[in-house]
Amino acid sequence: MSGSIYGTLFRISTWGESHGAGLGVVVDGCPAGLPLTEEDIQKYLDRRKPGQNRFATPRKEEDAVEILSGVFEGRTTGTPISMLVYNQSQRSKDYSEIASYYRPGHADYTYDEKYGFRDYRGGGRSSGRETIGRVAAGAVACKLLQAIGVEILTYSRKIGGIEISDDRFDKEEIGRNPVCMPDAQAAKQVEALLEEKLKEHDSVGGVIECRISGLPSGIGEPVFEKLSANLGKAVLSIGAVKGFELGDGFAAADAFGSANNDSFYYEKDGAIKKRSNHGGGIYGGISDGSEIWFRAAVKPTPSIAKLQKTVNKAGENIEVSIKGRHDPIIVPRAVVVVESMAALTLADMLLVSMSARLDAVVSFFKDKR
Amino acid sequence: MSGSIYGTLFRISTWGESHGAGLGVVVDGCPAGLPLTEEDIQKYLDRRKPGQNRFATPRKEEDAVEILSGVFEGRTTGTPISMLVYNQSQRSKDYSEIASYYRPGHADYTYDEKYGFRDYRGGGRSSGRETIGRVAAGAVACKLLQAIGVEILTYSRKIGGIEISDDRFDKEEIGRNPVCMPDAQAAKQVEALLEEKLKEHDSVGGVIECRISGLPSGIGEPVFEKLSANLGKAVLSIGAVKGFELGDGFAAADAFGSANNDSFYYEKDGAIKKRSNHGGGIYGGISDGSEIWFRAAVKPTPSIAKLQKTVNKAGENIEVSIKGRHDPIIVPRAVVVVESMAALTLADMLLVSMSARLDAVVSFFKDKR
Amino acid sequence: MSGSIYGTLFRISTWGESHGAGLGVVVDGCPAGLPLTEEDIQKYLDRRKPGQNRFATPRKEEDAVEILSGVFEGRTTGTPISMLVYNQSQRSKDYSEIASYYRPGHADYTYDEKYGFRDYRGGGRSSGRETIGRVAAGAVACKLLQAIGVEILTYSRKIGGIEISDDRFDKEEIGRNPVCMPDAQAAKQVEALLEEKLKEHDSVGGVIECRISGLPSGIGEPVFEKLSANLGKAVLSIGAVKGFELGDGFAAADAFGSANNDSFYYEKDGAIKKRSNHGGGIYGGISDGSEIWFRAAVKPTPSIAKLQKTVNKAGENIEVSIKGRHDPIIVPRAVVVVESMAALTLADMLLVSMSARLDAVVSFFKDKR
Amino acid sequence: MSGSIYGTLFRISTWGESHGAGLGVVVDGCPAGLPLTEEDIQKYLDRRKPGQNRFATPRKEEDAVEILSGVFEGRTTGTPISMLVYNQSQRSKDYSEIASYYRPGHADYTYDEKYGFRDYRGGGRSSGRETIGRVAAGAVACKLLQAIGVEILTYSRKIGGIEISDDRFDKEEIGRNPVCMPDAQAAKQVEALLEEKLKEHDSVGGVIECRISGLPSGIGEPVFEKLSANLGKAVLSIGAVKGFELGDGFAAADAFGSANNDSFYYEKDGAIKKRSNHGGGIYGGISDGSEIWFRAAVKPTPSIAKLQKTVNKAGENIEVSIKGRHDPIIVPRAVVVVESMAALTLADMLLVSMSARLDAVVSFFKDKR
Repeated sequence: MSGSIYGTLFRISTWGESHGAGLGVVVDGCPAGLPLTEEDIQKYLDRRKPGQNRFATPRKEEDAVEILSGVFEGRTTGTPISMLVYNQSQRSKDYSEIASYYRPGHADYTYDEKYGFRDYRGGGRSSGRETIGRVAAGAVACKLLQAIGVEILTYSRKIGGIEISDDRFDKEEIGRNPVCMPDAQAAKQVEALLEEKLKEHDSVGGVIECRISGLPSGIGEPVFEKLSANLGKAVLSIGAVKGFELGDGFAAADAFGSANNDSFYYEKDGAIKKRSNHGGGIYGGISDGSEIWFRAAVKPTPSIAKLQKTVNKAGENIEVSIKGRHDPIIVPRAVVVVESMAALTLADMLLVSMSARLDAVVSFFKDKR
Repeated sequence: MSGSIYGTLFRISTWGESHGAGLGVVVDGCPAGLPLTEEDIQKYLDRRKPGQNRFATPRKEEDAVEILSGVFEGRTTGTPISMLVYNQSQRSKDYSEIASYYRPGHADYTYDEKYGFRDYRGGGRSSGRETIGRVAAGAVACKLLQAIGVEILTYSRKIGGIEISDDRFDKEEIGRNPVCMPDAQAAKQVEALLEEKLKEHDSVGGVIECRISGLPSGIGEPVFEKLSANLGKAVLSIGAVKGFELGDGFAAADAFGSANNDSFYYEKDGAIKKRSNHGGGIYGGISDGSEIWFRAAVKPTPSIAKLQKTVNKAGENIEVSIKGRHDPIIVPRAVVVVESMAALTLADMLLVSMSARLDAVVSFFKDKR
Repeated sequence: MSGSIYGTLFRISTWGESHGAGLGVVVDGCPAGLPLTEEDIQKYLDRRKPGQNRFATPRKEEDAVEILSGVFEGRTTGTPISMLVYNQSQRSKDYSEIASYYRPGHADYTYDEKYGFRDYRGGGRSSGRETIGRVAAGAVACKLLQAIGVEILTYSRKIGGIEISDDRFDKEEIGRNPVCMPDAQAAKQVEALLEEKLKEHDSVGGVIECRISGLPSGIGEPVFEKLSANLGKAVLSIGAVKGFELGDGFAAADAFGSANNDSFYYEKDGAIKKRSNHGGGIYGGISDGSEIWFRAAVKPTPSIAKLQKTVNKAGENIEVSIKGRHDPIIVPRAVVVVESMAALTLADMLLVSMSARLDAVVSFFKDKR
Repeated sequence: MSGSIYGTLFRISTWGESHGAGLGVVVDGCPAGLPLTEEDIQKYLDRRKPGQNRFATPRKEEDAVEILSGVFEGRTTGTPISMLVYNQSQRSKDYSEIASYYRPGHADYTYDEKYGFRDYRGGGRSSGRETIGRVAAGAVACKLLQAIGVEILTYSRKIGGIEISDDRFDKEEIGRNPVCMPDAQAAKQVEALLEEKLKEHDSVGGVIECRISGLPSGIGEPVFEKLSANLGKAVLSIGAVKGFELGDGFAAADAFGSANNDSFYYEKDGAIKKRSNHGGGIYGGISDGSEIWFRAAVKPTPSIAKLQKTVNKAGENIEVSIKGRHDPIIVPRAVVVVESMAALTLADMLLVSMSARLDAVVSFFKDKR
């Protein structure tokens, strides 16, 4: 398998290369009756679109999505939703140089090792453009989640070592600055750093944070299909992500049990709540009804203009400078990709969880008769 | 689904509760012809066995494994391998108290929310004993990997904030100290800390590190089935794990591209190598033939004797002290669980990867004729 | 994979060989709260038990099932249900002869070709005893179906060319005669034929019919996961089954459209019904709420005492007479296996179908809050 | 799930409706290095194209396929192959009548029951045009099979009760007559019958036969993933197929064991062969290296101009005559669909079978180093 299919009930199948005819996704298993338009999808794709500001690739790509199936009279029909984005900038560029060597930090070498050859144009399938299918499908998942009452908030927590302050956290600010930070002050600092790194022909990485609210308790399966494990896989499957942590994550490893445990209490209305949320809203792999929060570590953009050592296919040790202007930072554009992967995972696990209890199953089918 | 099945070609199905009749696993898809005995399995189970030293539960459990199927005349037959461990200490203990409230840091609450009721005896399926099936299956996977030439080394990197020094790294030391550290000096410090925490009725967490050598390049699938994503899921599916990072992981998020990229060079024999391994041996989700290394964050044992606040089923806010002697640290016993999950993932992805190239497929079947 | 796992949400993992330690199954994904006892399972296993009458293997096997996990205080907990049957008659018999040649009509040769060697004792995994796991799991699925209101009736339609008459159809008769026919007269004829074939050291085949009532409409997925396709796979996966037909099946191939189409009409209460059921209750892969009926062709028992030609491992063309007393007919014992496979498929597809419509999904989770 | 994904390693994801923008498929898991052009695909699509002769829908549809990804410099890259066929005849036809009632023999009613509404234009997803994705993917599978040495021959065995004679079997004849029969005489008779049925506004069904040669032994997994069970599912998932039989199939149910068993013998070159092939080339679910043959029962076209009774949405019992010219027979166009589903199943199970034996696995990875 080439591994481009994801999910159990809400399943997606993505395809496409950086410089092929286009990219797309088929969503198989979206419940029937969900209102869906191309605009719903485009909104999400626009969040990952290149050329939006000076820290992102200046390639002007429309990335306009078309829905080819599965929607009738404005609503999903329950059959596969095929979405397609044609590539605009398939210039008849000369790729012979890039074909001749292995870019450090990229998958050129491993693709050749696995498949014997590779589509070297712009990275082929290993390009960041691969995420177009994820985001288009993620937009559908988000619409489904909203109908159920689940909201996802995703943003840059840290870039180039500069972290947001939780005290200055302002949700509205995320869309206002080019680095997707909920803290205007940190964003300013990051912008200054990025200017500097652009000049140095270097790049930076960062941490993306995601918060999920409104998720009912009981979602996620024990043992291997824990909600946490599936969120982890989903996020770690994104190209540049090198780490994942739920709740306190790696900090929990340094904590003591008495401080790390989240204690329960009854609210006045009889609802059970927790005094803290170190665990990130998931216990035993199952959601507890509180906010879920996790973080993803994103490595610095591997494509840099700075001179790097590598090897070519002629058997020589060489030095290269990756041409073309590249994003000095992936993080802001990856925010919507992380959100999409979280949404796809949640949509799937919500549907899967419907069969957990006999009483709910019996009453579901009784209602149907 | 209850989520107790894992894998695509090398698949396992685990079952069992802490205080039920027993626990076990069915391994479906192990290639035929692998020499396998109960001793092979027992060695791994003994590494997670309780009662081995003063920092582990003193419950005396044999955890003796029986192979019930799939092995004939000392070799696997290609059919499912069923392995079973009977529970020894199913004492007719009174569990009415534990049934009446939700232990902080445990899955009691989420199981009740999901299923409407729970097997409260010793945590039922959410107990650490659930990992018996993983480790028994992991032992089979390890034997398969060894036949292919893959070796896995797993150990405690950090416990209670005390980290090993890479300069003092001694592989042989791992089995000599009760905390599975490859650094005798750090292990001593950790032991002292654990003594202290035992007295305080508290617990500590830590970080487990895993190093995989001998894995061919080309293993792992692009996009969703990246080797890194599947290792992440595998490890994050272990009860107490809260974070996963590959290679430099979260540190890569703070690095610059010029420092984080691993540059290639030709060795004298013409082999392509890398000058560093920040990436952890996986690019684009595919192994590059170098060492793979990752880390898992393990939270402190949630069961502590220290007084904690929680709620009971009678609708009251109460204070509890978890009775029985519990491990003040899970990390050393979890080392073999992490290793098992890594082995299961590698075994599966190795087999899956066999169909990546037409030339290899054609020559495979030509040889068969 | 060895292919011993079946299902998407209601999944089973079977294991065991004819003359190994035992056989069993793990049921993963049964909704929590289903009352379940070992007696529930035993009833089904007893229907496939050998030694019940003179047409079945006289081996005295108890086939007593034990539930090892997943049930607490008499109800399923939502976690894996492990069931085990120990083999009683593992006599230290000499199998060297059977190991030396390939029995015609059996899987001895193909197992050797696939795996390089085989567990030759009693056919190993390819023995009819493999169905113990299917039937134990099928019993659980049947209990779940009954809770939802679905009933399955399965019986021998034809044996050795002798077919039941629909005019004499008597449901109660199925359990009264040793050949599981709902027609006493046909059953008598079959018994006479079997006596004759026993003397001739030969065997006969037959057709099993299955009728499913109470299944809601809307079950089954379009395209590849049609209810009909999955019932077909389930039934064709049983060792001796060589054909499957839904509704009129092969007879429909000879019919004209005007006669084969089932026309709709309104009943007085406004319900939509069909005037006929040539289609077998499934259209476009989806149940229409009427009775589902299908048939399975079962080949004659391959183990016969009559002299047969074959080859041995020494490279010789030989003649063999399969020793031991064998069933001259598999059909009656296979009835409960067909019923089990149908039940497992229906249980799984019912659970899968719960996420088909947005309105149902939204109201499901609204109720949960 | 909507069930439009098929396969384990060689996986396909189909999409599209009769009168939507188009139809297509994503093939995920095709080995890298397979030469593939749009012409390779078009050849297969042309075999199912409408408007080819007087017994097929006269709608002029080009059904021209485009490959959008996964192929680079004429060879598959190992990444998903996306193929698309735009619909040509999306006329702004008035579908209000067809939307108002349920066509007998069609899935209109069950789609409404399952999803609450349906894309009624030309049958939407339940149209025969859904098979475009199957055939495009099947063409890729066939190319892969040919590279391995597997050939598939598929043809009409019986139409409207008229069966071919095996004595007159002529492979070359299949492509010469409009009913895809390997027997010119039978084809002539069928043509006469079809002329008659066209005048009567009625339709006929038939039986398709498929013969697979060159498949190595050892393909298929025991228990649930038998090659026979998967071929059965694949074929039964095609819209109009109502039955499946392997080898002698239903005739085996009437045979005696002594006649039905296929006996083995040694050829002079030491190869093991069988004297007969009643079993259809599969034992215990595993191929034995001989020819595999199976049959599919196809019902008569449900769309007929003859007056039929049904119900409308206004609550009335009505009579309808399905307008437009429809094929009086589906069988000839379904031949390539059956072949495609067989090819997809074989391709997948061949790849899956590569991991059956340790020695083969070990030597595979040794060669890689």
